[in-house]
This record gives sequence, C-alpha cells and structure tokens, in this order.
Amino acid sequence: MTFDTPIDRRGTHCVKWDMMEPLYGVPPDDGLAMWVADMEFRAAAPIQRELEAMLAHGVYGYFGDDRPYLTAIQWWMRQRHGWDVAPEAITTTHGLVNGVGLAVDAWTKPGDAVVLFTPVYHAFARVIRAAGRSVTECPLAFDGDRYVMDFAAYDARMTGRERMVILCSPHNPGGRVWTRTELEQVADFARRHDLVLVSDEIHHDLVMPDQKHTPMALIPGVEDRLVMMTATTKTFNIAGAHIGNVIVPDATLRAPFAARLAALGISPNAFGMRMATAAYSPEGAAWVDELTRYLDGNRQLFDDGVNAIPGVRSMPIEATYLAWVDFRGLGMPADEITRRIAREARIAVNDGPSFGTGGEGFVRVNIAAPRAVVAEAVERLRRAFADVQ
Amino acid sequence: MTFDTPIDRRGTHCVKWDMMEPLYGVPPDDGLAMWVADMEFRAAAPIQRELEAMLAHGVYGYFGDDRPYLTAIQWWMRQRHGWDVAPEAITTTHGLVNGVGLAVDAWTKPGDAVVLFTPVYHAFARVIRAAGRSVTECPLAFDGDRYVMDFAAYDARMTGRERMVILCSPHNPGGRVWTRTELEQVADFARRHDLVLVSDEIHHDLVMPDQKHTPMALIPGVEDRLVMMTATTKTFNIAGAHIGNVIVPDATLRAPFAARLAALGISPNAFGMRMATAAYSPEGAAWVDELTRYLDGNRQLFDDGVNAIPGVRSMPIEATYLAWVDFRGLGMPADEITRRIAREARIAVNDGPSFGTGGEGFVRVNIAAPRAVVAEAVERLRRAFADVQ
Repeated sequence: MTFDTPIDRRGTHCVKWDMMEPLYGVPPDDGLAMWVADMEFRAAAPIQRELEAMLAHGVYGYFGDDRPYLTAIQWWMRQRHGWDVAPEAITTTHGLVNGVGLAVDAWTKPGDAVVLFTPVYHAFARVIRAAGRSVTECPLAFDGDRYVMDFAAYDARMTGRERMVILCSPHNPGGRVWTRTELEQVADFARRHDLVLVSDEIHHDLVMPDQKHTPMALIPGVEDRLVMMTATTKTFNIAGAHIGNVIVPDATLRAPFAARLAALGISPNAFGMRMATAAYSPEGAAWVDELTRYLDGNRQLFDDGVNAIPGVRSMPIEATYLAWVDFRGLGMPADEITRRIAREARIAVNDGPSFGTGGEGFVRVNIAAPRAVVAEAVERLRRAFADVQ
Repeated sequence: MTFDTPIDRRGTHCVKWDMMEPLYGVPPDDGLAMWVADMEFRAAAPIQRELEAMLAHGVYGYFGDDRPYLTAIQWWMRQRHGWDVAPEAITTTHGLVNGVGLAVDAWTKPGDAVVLFTPVYHAFARVIRAAGRSVTECPLAFDGDRYVMDFAAYDARMTGRERMVILCSPHNPGGRVWTRTELEQVADFARRHDLVLVSDEIHHDLVMPDQKHTPMALIPGVEDRLVMMTATTKTFNIAGAHIGNVIVPDATLRAPFAARLAALGISPNAFGMRMATAAYSPEGAAWVDELTRYLDGNRQLFDDGVNAIPGVRSMPIEATYLAWVDFRGLGMPADEITRRIAREARIAVNDGPSFGTGGEGFVRVNIAAPRAVVAEAVERLRRAFADVQ
C-alpha cells in the first residue's frame, strides 16, 4: 500500500464521490472528484492499529482520561512546529468549523463584524453570517506570482464593528505559507483594531519540503488575543472523526470560550480522541514526511501540466494539497469554464466565487490523489481547453 | 460471546473504570464500576461489522449522504415505537447533552428558567446553569412504591420566567415508564405555562419486557412545542460515538434550532452516523430484545438482594438499567452510607444529591453488567450493611 494505490470510495458515504453527480453533474464512474478537501489515501498505520484495538475490545462507552491526548499534542507542536503548548490552553471541539462557530459565538455579538482575507475557506463566511454577524472582506493582493496582503487598504476598510480577524495559515485556497514578516503585520493589524486573532493552522503540517510554517503563537505581542486552531483531521485525512483543537494561551481570553463549550455540552468522541492520539506520534510524523514529498511530486506534475495551457495558471502551492487555478487569462465566460471542467473534463472542482471576493475566474483543485489521477486530470483539462492552445 | 462474558475495560480510556479511583477512591482492580451510564457489554454484531468495513476501507474523510441514516431512524421509530417521523424533522447532534445545550441556547434567553422534575439526570441542570439560565425544580412525589407527578404543586412553583420543560422519559434515575395519562398531564402543564416541551427519550428502548413506553410525540396537542430527543448511544452502548437526534416535528419551532446548528458548525461524525445506521436494523432490534430480557434478570437479582437489607429499598425498574436505591430507612448519616459503599463494598455509584432535590439518601447503581457482577455487588452491599440486619 502506497500513495499510488487507487482506492474506490464510491458508495462509502463519502461526500466527495457520492455527492459529485447531484452537485456537479459529474458521474462518479468516469469522473474525477477533486473538490472536497480530503485525500484519496488510507490512514497511517498507527491510526489503523488504534482502531483495530478499539474493535477488538468492542465496547464504545463514554471516553475518559484525555491526558495521553494532551501529551501527544504537546509533543507534536514542540517537535514539528517549535511551539510549546500548555495543556490547560487546549480545548477540544468537533473540528475546525465547529471551532470557528464557537469562537464567533464566544467572542463576538450579533451585529459585530469578522475580518476575512479573501478568497478564503468558504465555511468561515457561512458560519459568521449564520450567527448574525457580518464579514468585512479584505481582498488579498497579487504580486504577480502569489497572494500578498495590503494592510493600508485593509485599514481603510474597517468600519469599527470588527471584533475578530480569522487568518488561514497556511492559506486555503491560495497555498501560501505566510512569512514571519507577514505574520507580524497581521499581529500588528489585530492589535491596531483591537481584534481577537484567530489563526486557522489546520494545514500547518502539509507544507512543501522547501517551505517552513511559522505558528502565529511564535509571533510576540498577541498572547492576550490569540486563538490557535489546529487538528489532526486534515494532516492525517481523518475528517470523518470530527475532532479539532482550539488552543487559547491566555486564561482570561479562554474563559468565555470554555463557558460556551460547557453550556453547549461539547465534548469529544472516543474515535476522534484515540485516532488523534495515535496520529501524533513518531510513526505518524514519518507518514506525514512521506506524504508531503508525494504531494510535492503531484504539485509539480499538476503545475507543469496546467501552466502549459495558454491563459491558465496555477498559483504556486507552498502548502496544502489545493491548487488554485486562474482561468481568467482565457478571456472566457465563467460559466463556459465551469461547463468545460465539469462536462468535458468530467472533473468536480470547487468554484472560485464560493471563497469570496477575488475568487472569480478561479477554481480550486484537490490534488491529494494517486499520481495517475493527477496526470489524468491534467490530460483532461488539456483536452477540454485544447482549442485555446 | 453473551452478556455473561466478562470484559476488562481497565486502561481503555473508559471513564467508568479509569476514573473511579481518582473520583471515588475505589481501586479498579477489585472495585466494581457501577456509576457512569454505559454497559459492560460488547456492541451488537451489525455495529461491529460496519466498523470492520470502515477499517478495511481505511479512508475516513468527510461523511456524505445521510439518507440511509434517516431511513433507519424512520424504520426504528415506526417498528419499535409506533411513531411516524418525517425525515425533515430530524436534526443530528453530538449526543443528548449537546442536544439539550443547543435547545436551551435556541429556545431560551439568559435569565429564563427551565423546569426539571427532580431528581433527574444531572447534566440537565449543569448545561442550563452554564448557559446562564436557572432551573425551576419540580420535585417528584412518591406514591409509596415509585415516583409520580404532582401538577398542583408544580403550578404553584412557576415564577413566570419558565420557557422550557425537560421531561426524562423513561425516567433516569427513577426508572419510571410514564403512563399515557401522566404524559397527557405533562403536555397540559407545558401548554398551561406556554413551555417548549423537551422529551428526553434516550432510554426508550431499554424498557422491561412487561412495560410499554409511549413517545410524547403520540400525545396530541403539543406538536407546536414538542422537541423529541432520541439516540442509539444508550440503547446500543455506543456513547463514545457521540451521536444523537433532536427531532422537531414543527417547522417553525425547528427553525431557530437549525439556525444554531448552522452557526455553531455542528455536523455529525462518520463513525457515529455509520454505527447508528447499522444499529437501527432488524438484527439490532433482536439484540435489544435479548438485552432487555437480560437486564430484567439483573433487575430481579439486584432488587431481591438489596431489598432484603432492612432499611434499604430499590425503586422498581420499569425502564433503564439504573437502580435508584433508597438508603434513608437505615437512619444512617449520608456520608457513612457513601463511605460503606465506596470503602467497604468497593463499589463506585452515583450519589443521589447530584440528581437534584429529592436525591438525598439515594444512590444510583448501574446494573448493566454480567450477572455475576450484579450478584457480587449485592453480596458486597449485604456485607457492608450486615450490622443493620
């Protein structure tokens, strides 16, 4: 079993494959599911072994004793990210979206606004608006190669109603690994406007071999406003386990969040706890190293292929397994691009506009699949846009 | 493998066994864990098979397509409870406590009060108070044999701040299966005081063979205020899977609850969804029938044993696997009773006062264990209180 091994996920309650036909009109039998951000890879051996032990025991009662879980998180963040986490700073939610929903609930009020650097992961705006808060969009700038931030422009966009900023770091869908200087500028921005700074670092382990992620927790001067969101689910492809962490170093800031967890009866499920504990291990780390090398190969194959189509350009992937592909150079109507990708190439991708302002003319393509699938996707896209070449 | 087969749960992240020594001073090596409400039994075969299929596949991505889950719920409620559930009425939470927390959040405001018939499951008051609401306790009356309700007394207790009532049906810890007449009186009470009526029916499948549970949904006149809470977790001993249902037949009433689910990013985990779907099946039903016959045998053994201790009496268990044992007849100080149970009998039980007013002098004993364990518990209790006989 390697990352090259094809796995048939059809009919396994997998939203990525089983919902692509109703949503995109792409039949799963000869279509390629490259939208939802999970991977076409089996779980790492330590996770499989932990689940096997649970099954052999066969009793799935109330979970207790999270000390090994907290220790595993501390070990991982120290080893992989140079970040020392105090166990009391760690709270556990049902994943990132739940964490963001609870953060909005705990630290903002109806009518407040939350800053997003767009385009960005679509669920942020969804939960913010569902909670009766508004989004203040700060569109990312483009330096000719990749996304950058323009704080002079962002300062001018503030309405006074902003109470929180959510940074996606590394960035989904743009693939950026923000530099230390950029993170310091985000920290300054949060202080300048007195915002709770939520750093979604769910992709922090999925960085390309030549890149280095810096946790926002290592940037000085934001300890009293910092909310770190991390998870094993993206790193280890276990999104179905629904487990994530909201790490709040400052006890005063943490208190209202912990109060909401208690009032809403949020506590983690046994499968997620045991899978995550098993994942954050030396064997898990070796699996992630192998994975990122493999994803790097996929990235090169994909970029070389799609960038060869005149008018099409994939933004450099510094982290994540999500290609952010710019079709604007084709000068083609958006619905025609969408039609060709779904109907001719038979690939289900995420449409750019769902990520907010700046997403128009882009699509997000998930390349975490066996390399042969990525090669096939490139070939299909090449054929679908052959007339422009 | 039968219900008689002993299972060693020590060191398996099981709160019931692994936390009994720190909390009760009862060592797991020769103590008996009879507190937390899960069972010492392995999961039913269809649940094990579903998990085996998940492991063989090995990809745990985002869950999709809940139609089989909804169909399974509809089938179960129709077959087992004579209750027709519309699929759109079903929302899914991370279990009962999460469901109650969300209900309090959706349908009440800070400063409002929630009515509880006490003694009752301790987590209700915990989440209500954590949310800044208060509890209006309506103490259950005693008819000389079991708990009954006294609505004239309850009417007099209303302050005007009550917005919701939570009924535990069947009743934890009292073991009552409320009659249709009693349920009609609860419905009248909810209407009379204009309360959202939350019916926690998580124990509805665990009724003794001579008893019949009536869902509150079959009582006319409360459709516009009714919130039904059900789960596979208690019935099938899969609490660690963290999944439950909040079923709200009325679309207008449902809307604010669904809005909170969306704003808080609540969505179910893949393990819970698949285990629950597998459980609600003919094979699962046969397992439950066998289980309740076994629990009935445990109940008889336990009641005969403890009722033979002068001054001690177990309330008749009509449903649940929770004995509610009255030690008041001993005329012994509460801390001496607690000490004898924990130190001499070396049994971890739930203390009565944690269930609210009316719990003083009682303990809750979980008898969902191999019969030999129940026999041993009876013998240990008999010896611990031998001097009063």
